[in-house]
Order: sequence, then C-alpha cells, then structure tokens
Amino acid sequence: MPRGLNRHVPMTLRLDPDRLLPVDPTTREVARRLYALVAGAPIVSPHGHVDPHLLLDDEPFPDPATLFIRYDHYVTRLLHADGVSFATLGVPDASGAEQVGEPREAWRAFCSRWRLFAGTASGYWLAHAFGTLFGIDEQPSAENADALYDRIAAQLERPEMRPRALFSRFGIDVLATTDDPMDDLAAHRALADDPTFSGRVLPTFRPDAYIDPLAPGFRDKVAALAAWGGHAADDYPAYVASLEARRRHFVEHGAVSADFGVREPYSIDLGAERAGELFAKAVAGTIDAAEARDFLGHMLLESARMSVDDGLVMTIHPGVHRNHSQSTFDRFGPDTGHDIPIPAEFVQNLRPLLERHGNDPRLHLVLFTIDETTYSREIAPLAGFYRSVFIGAPWWFLDAPDAVQRFRAAVTETAGFSRGSGFIDDTRAFLSIPARHDMSRRLDAAFLARLVAEGRLDEESAAEIVVDMVGAQPRKVFRL
Amino acid sequence: MPRGLNRHVPMTLRLDPDRLLPVDPTTREVARRLYALVAGAPIVSPHGHVDPHLLLDDEPFPDPATLFIRYDHYVTRLLHADGVSFATLGVPDASGAEQVGEPREAWRAFCSRWRLFAGTASGYWLAHAFGTLFGIDEQPSAENADALYDRIAAQLERPEMRPRALFSRFGIDVLATTDDPMDDLAAHRALADDPTFSGRVLPTFRPDAYIDPLAPGFRDKVAALAAWGGHAADDYPAYVASLEARRRHFVEHGAVSADFGVREPYSIDLGAERAGELFAKAVAGTIDAAEARDFLGHMLLESARMSVDDGLVMTIHPGVHRNHSQSTFDRFGPDTGHDIPIPAEFVQNLRPLLERHGNDPRLHLVLFTIDETTYSREIAPLAGFYRSVFIGAPWWFLDAPDAVQRFRAAVTETAGFSRGSGFIDDTRAFLSIPARHDMSRRLDAAFLARLVAEGRLDEESAAEIVVDMVGAQPRKVFRL
Amino acid sequence: MPRGLNRHVPMTLRLDPDRLLPVDPTTREVARRLYALVAGAPIVSPHGHVDPHLLLDDEPFPDPATLFIRYDHYVTRLLHADGVSFATLGVPDASGAEQVGEPREAWRAFCSRWRLFAGTASGYWLAHAFGTLFGIDEQPSAENADALYDRIAAQLERPEMRPRALFSRFGIDVLATTDDPMDDLAAHRALADDPTFSGRVLPTFRPDAYIDPLAPGFRDKVAALAAWGGHAADDYPAYVASLEARRRHFVEHGAVSADFGVREPYSIDLGAERAGELFAKAVAGTIDAAEARDFLGHMLLESARMSVDDGLVMTIHPGVHRNHSQSTFDRFGPDTGHDIPIPAEFVQNLRPLLERHGNDPRLHLVLFTIDETTYSREIAPLAGFYRSVFIGAPWWFLDAPDAVQRFRAAVTETAGFSRGSGFIDDTRAFLSIPARHDMSRRLDAAFLARLVAEGRLDEESAAEIVVDMVGAQPRKVFRL
Repeated sequence: MPRGLNRHVPMTLRLDPDRLLPVDPTTREVARRLYALVAGAPIVSPHGHVDPHLLLDDEPFPDPATLFIRYDHYVTRLLHADGVSFATLGVPDASGAEQVGEPREAWRAFCSRWRLFAGTASGYWLAHAFGTLFGIDEQPSAENADALYDRIAAQLERPEMRPRALFSRFGIDVLATTDDPMDDLAAHRALADDPTFSGRVLPTFRPDAYIDPLAPGFRDKVAALAAWGGHAADDYPAYVASLEARRRHFVEHGAVSADFGVREPYSIDLGAERAGELFAKAVAGTIDAAEARDFLGHMLLESARMSVDDGLVMTIHPGVHRNHSQSTFDRFGPDTGHDIPIPAEFVQNLRPLLERHGNDPRLHLVLFTIDETTYSREIAPLAGFYRSVFIGAPWWFLDAPDAVQRFRAAVTETAGFSRGSGFIDDTRAFLSIPARHDMSRRLDAAFLARLVAEGRLDEESAAEIVVDMVGAQPRKVFRL
Repeated sequence: MPRGLNRHVPMTLRLDPDRLLPVDPTTREVARRLYALVAGAPIVSPHGHVDPHLLLDDEPFPDPATLFIRYDHYVTRLLHADGVSFATLGVPDASGAEQVGEPREAWRAFCSRWRLFAGTASGYWLAHAFGTLFGIDEQPSAENADALYDRIAAQLERPEMRPRALFSRFGIDVLATTDDPMDDLAAHRALADDPTFSGRVLPTFRPDAYIDPLAPGFRDKVAALAAWGGHAADDYPAYVASLEARRRHFVEHGAVSADFGVREPYSIDLGAERAGELFAKAVAGTIDAAEARDFLGHMLLESARMSVDDGLVMTIHPGVHRNHSQSTFDRFGPDTGHDIPIPAEFVQNLRPLLERHGNDPRLHLVLFTIDETTYSREIAPLAGFYRSVFIGAPWWFLDAPDAVQRFRAAVTETAGFSRGSGFIDDTRAFLSIPARHDMSRRLDAAFLARLVAEGRLDEESAAEIVVDMVGAQPRKVFRL
Repeated sequence: MPRGLNRHVPMTLRLDPDRLLPVDPTTREVARRLYALVAGAPIVSPHGHVDPHLLLDDEPFPDPATLFIRYDHYVTRLLHADGVSFATLGVPDASGAEQVGEPREAWRAFCSRWRLFAGTASGYWLAHAFGTLFGIDEQPSAENADALYDRIAAQLERPEMRPRALFSRFGIDVLATTDDPMDDLAAHRALADDPTFSGRVLPTFRPDAYIDPLAPGFRDKVAALAAWGGHAADDYPAYVASLEARRRHFVEHGAVSADFGVREPYSIDLGAERAGELFAKAVAGTIDAAEARDFLGHMLLESARMSVDDGLVMTIHPGVHRNHSQSTFDRFGPDTGHDIPIPAEFVQNLRPLLERHGNDPRLHLVLFTIDETTYSREIAPLAGFYRSVFIGAPWWFLDAPDAVQRFRAAVTETAGFSRGSGFIDDTRAFLSIPARHDMSRRLDAAFLARLVAEGRLDEESAAEIVVDMVGAQPRKVFRL
C-alpha cells in the first residue's frame, strides 16, 4: 500500500472499550453488562501450541520481529502475498537462495504494510497486544517502525514482561500444550514440581505421525515407539499397547485430551486381524493409499476406544490440505501459511465411530472445522443428539469476529449452548492469548445480547450462560 | 446445567410483544406495522404431520409430558444428548433394558434442563405455547416442575383445550396431514362430513415406501397395492396405474400435494421397459443399490408426470440420513432425533425431470433443503427460471429465526418473493402450530422492514408482499 | 401478482439518498462520510460484456423494451418463470412456434409484473436507471406501462441519451469488453483513433471455444485460427504459437486481461507431447470426455504461462452449468436465464497451476465464484498466501446487496482488503453500469462503516481503503 509509505503524521491506534459489541445502543447496553461479568474471568485454554519451555526457562522474549512475526503464520502469509520474502521475515531458506534477514528488517517490512491487516483477526490481536502490553498508541508505519522496534525491545527486557510474569498477568488458569507421544514431558513435570510457578500447564497427546502411514516420518516414529515398548516394529497388538501406555504417561502428567489432525474424519473398524495386516504393510512401506486411509480410519476408531478407557477427551481438527505449495514447503518448511481448507464430511465418516462410542458418556469428542458449511448441516445436528459429541469453537481462519457470529447463529438454534466446547485459542503466539480470549468473550456477550434484545432470551439466563461459557462449560467438556 | 438445578427463585418467562422484530428503532417501527397486517391472518398449513384422528376424536390431550416431549424429537434429542434416556422420556425400549418412565418423571427431566433449549427454535416455540395457552410466567425448573405439570394437566381437561377448540382458536383455515397411499382416508372423510366441524383437513400422498426398493417394507407395500389393484405384484404398468388410482383417491378426498422424502432428488427416465425390469427385480428382492437408485429416480420423474396429469403439487424433502444411529433405531425406533442432514444436489439430479416438465404450468414442484449451501447456488437460480419450481420455506433445523433470515437473504435477491412456497410448519406438534406461523410472520415482517429501512423497497409494496406471503402466495403454490 | 394488475393509484418510485447504508444512525453517519469520498469517482470497469460497436456507432438506443428487457437475462428469466414467453419478450423462437412480439407488448408484460423484482438486484438497478436517467417517479404497472414507454422512448431520441454522451456522463474512465480471439478488434482501434471520443475501451481475450474440445464450434474455431496462422489445424506447437500471437494482437489493442469461463478450474501439466496427442484427437473429433478435460486443464495452465510472458491478467469464472434447459436453448439460444451454478473447487483443481506460477509476480490470477461456500474456505486462504491470486468481486447472482456483505464478511477477516479485485460489473446492460458501481460503493462504505462502529478499524484508515477500492486497487490488479 504505497500510500502507507508516504504518510508523515502517524495514525492513532486506539482500543475502543466497546469494540466488537453491538452498535445498536439498546443491545450494546445489554452486551456491556454481560461482558463485564466475564471480562476478568480466568483464562481456560484446553488446546494450543505454546512451547512449555517458554515457561520453564522464563527467558525474556527476543526481539519484536521474532516475537510478533517470525512464528505467526497468520502474519507471514499476508506479508508473503504482498511480496515480502520469508527470508526477510526470518524464515531460513533451505535452498540457500536467500540469507535470513535482520529482525529489524522484518519489522520494517511489517510496519510499512500494517494496512494489509486492516479488518483481519490478526490485525485485531496485534493491535490489542500493542496497546495493552506496550502502550503503543499509533499505528505501525514505515516512519515509526524503528521507534516502535526500540520501544518494544526495551520493554521486553523488563522482568514483568517475562513469560511467567505474563502468564499470571494474563490470568491464565490452565494452558494445554501439544506434544509428541514420545515426549518425556520433562518440561511439564519440571513446571509442575516448581514451587515458584503455580500455573497449570498440561500436555496434549498428538499421535498423527504414529497412526497415519502416509505421514512424514511414520516409520521412524513407529520404530521409536517399538524400541521404547521393547517389541517388534510390526507387532500390531504391541503397537496398540504401547500407544495406550504413552497415553497413560500423558495422563499421569496431567493431559486431558488427545488431538487428531486427520485430513478427513474417516473412521472404520477393520478388526484386529486386518488392521494388523495393514500395519505390517505400513511398517514395511508397502501400503497403498486406500489401505493407508483404512488403517488411519481404524486407528481413529481405536483412539476413541482408548479415550473411553483412559478418559482423554478426543479432539479432531480435520479438513486441511497441509503445505499446499510444495516449492514453498521445500524451501521454508511447514507452517508457512499455505495450509488450505478443503471440504469436510462428518456424517458418513464418523458413523462407525459414533455407532460404537457416540452415546458413551466416557467419550468426549470435540469436532472442529474450517468448512463453515458443516456447522448447521452436520456438526450441530450430530452434537444435538450424540452424548459424546461437542461443537468445537471456530478454528483458524474462522476464529474472527464475523465468522464467530456466523458460527453461533449456525449452531445455537439447533444445539443450544450446552453442546459447545467453550473457546479454544489454539495459538502458538503466547502474547495473543489474552486478546483472543477477550475477543471471544466480547463476541459471546454480543451474540447473547442480540438474543436478549430480540426477545429470544431473558438477560438473567444470558448472564448465567455467558459465565458458563468461559468456565463451567470448557471445564466440563475438557474434564478440567 | 447444574446451576439450573440449584436455583430457588424461579426465573420469569415473558413473551416480548416485539420478539424477533429488528432492534433498530426505525426498522422496528416499520416491522411492527407490517407484522400487524398479518398477526391475525388465518393459518394456511399445506404440509405437516398432525394425525387427523386427533381432530376426529377430539379427545382431551394427555399429560404435559406426552403432549410436549414424548413426540417432539426436537426436544427429545437435546434431552438425550444431555444424558436423559428415551425410556425416561416415555419412548418404549424394544431391548427391554429399561422400563418406560412415568410422564411426571419425563416432565421433571425436561424442566430441570430447560436451559438446554436457550437460544433454540424449540425453546422459542415451547415458551410461546406455555405463555399463550397456559398463562405460565416462570421458566420451567426442577423446583416448579411438579407445579407446572399439575397446572397444565388441569387445564388440558377443559373443553376449550380440546383439539377442535384449539383448531378454531388458532385460526387454522387449512391443515394438511401426511398419509400412506393405501390409507382409506376415512378420518379425512369423516371430518369433512361432520357438520359440527368446519375446518379443512386435507390428506397428502406420501409414496416413498412404494417407490424406493430399498425402503423398509417396500415389498409388502407393493404387494398390498397390487392386491388392492387386483394385479400381479411385479406388473409394472399395473403398478403405475394403481399408484395413479390411489392419487385420484387422495384428490377426491381433497389432497393438493404429494410429498417425497428421497435421500437425493435424483431423476432419470429409464423408459417403461427398463423400469419394468428393475421393478420385477425389486419385487423379487434381487435389485442392487445402483438399480434401486435408478428405479427410484425413474419413479420420481414418473411422479412429476402424474402431477402434470392430476394436479397434485409435488414437494421434495431430500438430503437426510435417516436413523443415523442404528443401535438407537433398534431400541427406540425412528424419529428419535438422529436423522442427520447430508449435502444435497439439485442441478444435475433434477435436470431430466425439469427437462421434461420444468416449464409445464401444470406442475408445481416445491424444493426443500436442510443444506443451506444450495439456497443461493442452486434452488433460487432454478426457481428463478423454471415455471414449475418454487422455493420451499426453511425446513427442520433451518426453521429457526436466524436460519430463516439467512434463507431470505440468500434467495430473495435472485428470485424475489414470487417464487417462494409461503411458510410450511411441517410439524407433528399441534400446539406449536400458532407459535411457528407467528414466528414466520414476525420474521417476514423483520426482513421486509430491513429492505424498507435500507431504501430497497417502499413500505407500500412491503405491506402487499407480507400479506401475500401468508395468503395468496401459499394458496397459489398449493392450489388451495 | 394479480394485485399489481388491479391497482389504480400508481405507487411512487423513490431513490433513498441513503439506500444500502447501515440503518443504525451512528454507523450510517460514518457510512455517509465514506460514501461521499467515492460517490463521484471515475468508473473503472475491467471486465464486462458491452459491445464496442455501441460506442463506435453511437446510435440512439432502441425502444425501452429492447433496451431494458430483451438482452438482460436477469430480467427475462423472472418474467419467464412467471409465465411470459420469450417470444413476447422479443427473443426469436427458432422452432417457429411463436412470433416475436412487439416491444410495447414486452414492456407491458414487464411493467405489470414489476412486483416480481421487489428485493432483487435487478429491481434495484432498474429503479436506479429509471429514476436517475429518465426522472421516473412512479413504479411501473399495467396502468402506466404505455405512458412510461412513450416517455422513455421520447427521451432516447435526445442526443444526451446517446451511448457516448452517457459514457462521459457516467464518468467511465476505462471499459473492458469481452471478445473472440479472432476478432480483428477494428472497433476498438477505430474508437482509439477517433479524436472525438476520449474514452478508454479495451478488448478482453476470451479463448474458451478455442481451448475446450467440448465447446460448441471448437473445431471450426481451431480451423480458423490455423488458417490465420498458416499451419495445419492439428499442429499443436503452431496452435499454441497462434494463440500467443492473437494474445499479442489483443495486447497491442490495449487488452489487459484474458478471461476463462471453464466449468471447473481444473489445471494439469500434460507436457507438450501428450498435449499434442490430445489436441490431434480433439481436432479429429475423436477425443473423449476425460481427455477433453485434461486438454482444457493443460491449456488453462498454458494460458497462465502465457500471462507470465505477456502480462495479461488471468480471470476465471468457473462453476456454471450453461444452458441447463436444452429445450429452451434449442428454441431461444444461450443467455436466456438458465445458466445454473454448480459447486466449485479451487484447492485441488488449481494446485498444479499455482505450483508452477502461483508466486510469480508477473501473474495476476483473479478468481470469481457463484458458489459462496468457497469464499472463506478456499478463495480467501489461497489469495492470502499466493502472490498471484486475487479475490474476484461477487459475480452474477451474488452481485447483490446482501450477498456482497456476506462476501466481504467471509473474505476480509482472512485476506484483508489488499487481495481483492475491486468491483467488476460484468454487465451487458450499459445503462446499469452506474447503478452497479454506485451500489458497490455504497456497500463498501457500509461494510467499512460497520468495522469502524464496531471498533475494528479507525475511520481514517477506512477512508483510505474505500478510496483505494474504487481506484488504486483495481488499477493495480488489472494493470491499468
């Protein structure tokens, strides 16, 4: 946006205290009262991607670019689309074609393109962090980039800006990480044993690479699991037993859920014999695509069975074409902004799993989607009947103000409020956690206020619901 | 919601006179004026599932639980999801695992979980019935469950609460039922011949089980039809002739439409010879899935041809996976809340039918859907060109305030108001009929008021349209 | 609508100066200020279907019916659905079954059915043209049809109502037409060379019938191309070279884009040898459907490569089942209102093309859709990463007020404002151009005003964005 480059008077950055609340005065009044009930509530974060070592080590955050840009693929993707190279943004180029740039260069590229984020969820979260954590009151621009960089960098050195200090300042009650099944969880244990840190940081079991024969590294992962379990790599019953044992290890370290990033939520019961045959092929590297799909579908159903046994909540995040741009993946690796949604289908795919466990109170199955068409057509009707099924909060591209209101409108009339997961931030960006939860609370208040203003709900009930949605509901669904 | 169980002061239940009208004051004023024009208009209900014997026998309604819970699978599904067993709700358990509970127990389970229905269409309809018919002014809860039960039960014994009294109190002008093609329609005849009852109660021809070789009971149904027609069960021309004769029987008893609950609106013209071959296989029980699909598709097209001949309006309700949970179906039967929507496709599936009859003024074809994606993409464009095609009102999960506004916004800009069916309640729950029609009228007024407030329509035209939509339009589409 | 036929007092037609702006007073104030910034901006129209001879010849427009009805299939389709025959509307009946009617008859049929267009985009555009160009202040009706006809006909004879006068009165800065690759573009050259006409009228390269073996006339088109190029019809390398040469011819005449109306945006790289084999089959008429799909997919990818070389912006308009009603097509030809949308899929279909050219700054690829489900799920995520991909403005049935707001809400939170194409009118109806651009500007202002009122964007940024969206943005995307 060249105009942005030529401005000389910085534009103000201001956080409207009523942001995201309905504009209609009557409705806004109701929304303010509802929001006030939850604005300061503790943060429950049952699923996300923060590294536990961030809190274990409690080192100061690095420079502003590494903090706000480098690892946030919501941000890097739009900068890339506008022509900025990943190397400039600090992402190493495996092809060696380009040197990684200085953080300050990345920051300048970002500030001079601040306009790209106008109207986006990322822009909203960034503005919240800039305003609330760093007291920044002007919009980033080419002109003030260096000044903002220095200002943020200076503040990052202060003790109150360290991860643990922010953890308590943010009011985080529970924070779940996402971990490899073979992770020894030493970091989680150390945090739990540390008398100077009272926060609850829980691991999450994420076995995709161990159950999907087509996942990169599947054979190595399975070999490592077998070595740990002391059995042959292609011994299917022992493989299942080792997965169960690793889940127990996670449960012993406080895990409450297991997460599955399958391409489609396909489930099937192959029976142990057929499953064993396909597993042997998978380990031998001779399995074909259709067989691999069946094996993964079988393990998804098996994982539901394990949840019935060990109580881990099962969350599914399906419908993503990962690393759509092969050439970008080859040069810059995964999580570089080209994971693209694809249509999702739950009704047929999940039927075998639901037939087996769908009404078993021991199973909690939370379904996420980035295909909005499934909200009113599939997910809400399933969650409105099956006792095990809960509706995951809007995920990824849909975790944004208008998308969240579409989500609420699409599922509530069919499934009410009791079938929802509560808000999930699902983020790597530690500093965005309060912004995301605050956004969700404002949107809950806005949605409920509209129901009240339209005479569809009394305010007293709305008040109870808005409070439940940030506390009792997620704690119930995730067994916290 | 445990909180609901612990409250001691009952929360008030109040029907806002402006409920569902736009919150913006200017728009609300317009909406009030438009709503006032239709608030008291007679109810035209061209499609639904009320049992004609309800009106023929005119017995008092049974207890509150049987009236409001037992047969309303919108209600039972959410209670089931929350952990209440169907047996407790009064649904017999074929497995014998559980005894059917007392109505009062079902009612208590419902009242203590009233919060489950917050924000749902069912909650809205129930509140309307409680408030308008029983003068209830507090929300159901564990504490007041017995008192509400006794209060409703007492009122149900009063003569003005009998079905016929309510029929006239509701201002029902026409009510269509849904009936088996072999039904003798004696109940409809008796009602028509009864000088003490002036209501119009029409049968609807629903032949699914007679034309879908994979439908439960197909062979018995076809055998019964053949026995009635006096021909061999596998005589295709005679089978077609008997279906035509049964349709005539329905027409003679006032039927105006034939309804089709196919899984997909697939149509194909096989020609009589090939159709005859497949029919013989179907009757012999040797037809395969692909052949069965073709035969049903052929009969759908044949049924359109019959409508051209006898004038019965053709309504299609596709895109539902019936009885998704086999184990629940085995124990508790159909209509227990696990019919789940699936994607629907109209453009390719209906093409042979539309090529043959789509512009024939003698055919009225009303398309319903629970797949919202087809509103703007398929149904509105088809109805905006083909003379026979009309857009069915939001159905099932989509018959709810926000979903209805999405529907109007999705179809109106392409097809205007002249291509709609008018409101269809499609309900089994007799007491919810006024609530549903009133909801629809409020939403029509709200949508039109928004167009007026946005300068897209003048109020005089809006007034004519809102009146047409509850009278002239459905009467035209359904030839009433 | 019989009521319309019986009215005697004409209803007023009034253009609300605030039409389409948000109703909430606070938001409306902001929207007014934003709209005022662009209300009078020059019109940039990078894609449409106006005939260049209209401006070259600069003849008076014919009668009102031919001007407003005959060629507008948005209008004819709804009149047809309501029972008016195409012949009555002026469309010749190839079957000879019906004589073409008098324009005045068509006009009367239209006026007496004005109510059909209530709430539609067509009705909005027509009202705008009637009010702003002809000073009409009453709604068309059976009663005033003849008077309106005479009034419009009289004004059409005045010099200021000629095409060139209106071109400048409308403030059109650039107008792109859509042309056959073999068009000599003499009309465009003559306009460019005419010292008395200063408007910019650019051709657009539309090669569908030359690259799709299943397109009507493919073999004749390819033969004509080969004859022009002086090579054998089945010489694939020469065929590609001739297409490139024709593109150069367009570029030399000012073309900035090439448009593709493929059924699905399928791309594949067959390699020259395999492509040559399929091309030979296509020319010989022996290609099968799967091979034809592959050849077209290959040529789509080849066309992207050509755009990289010659800089023509590539626009894709996929997902339409053309001429759904064969019998209507046979009698009345194409563009008679039964082109029906079908589901579109971009993520898998475009992957080979994007892998090859998706991040090449020399390619601008604008994706249009009439399948709304792809906005948030596919198009916005793709445009938010790939440098070449831009989000096409709402097209066809979706170019309407509510649909445009759904579009903005669906794509902005993911892709911001920098990835959009700017408004595209895509119209044949010359007189509707100002109405369409004005509608788009009002809706942009309304959307941005909502973000401002909800505290998601500051008004100063919104002001810059609304101005960019009608000028800098489309000029950047279309290289104007």
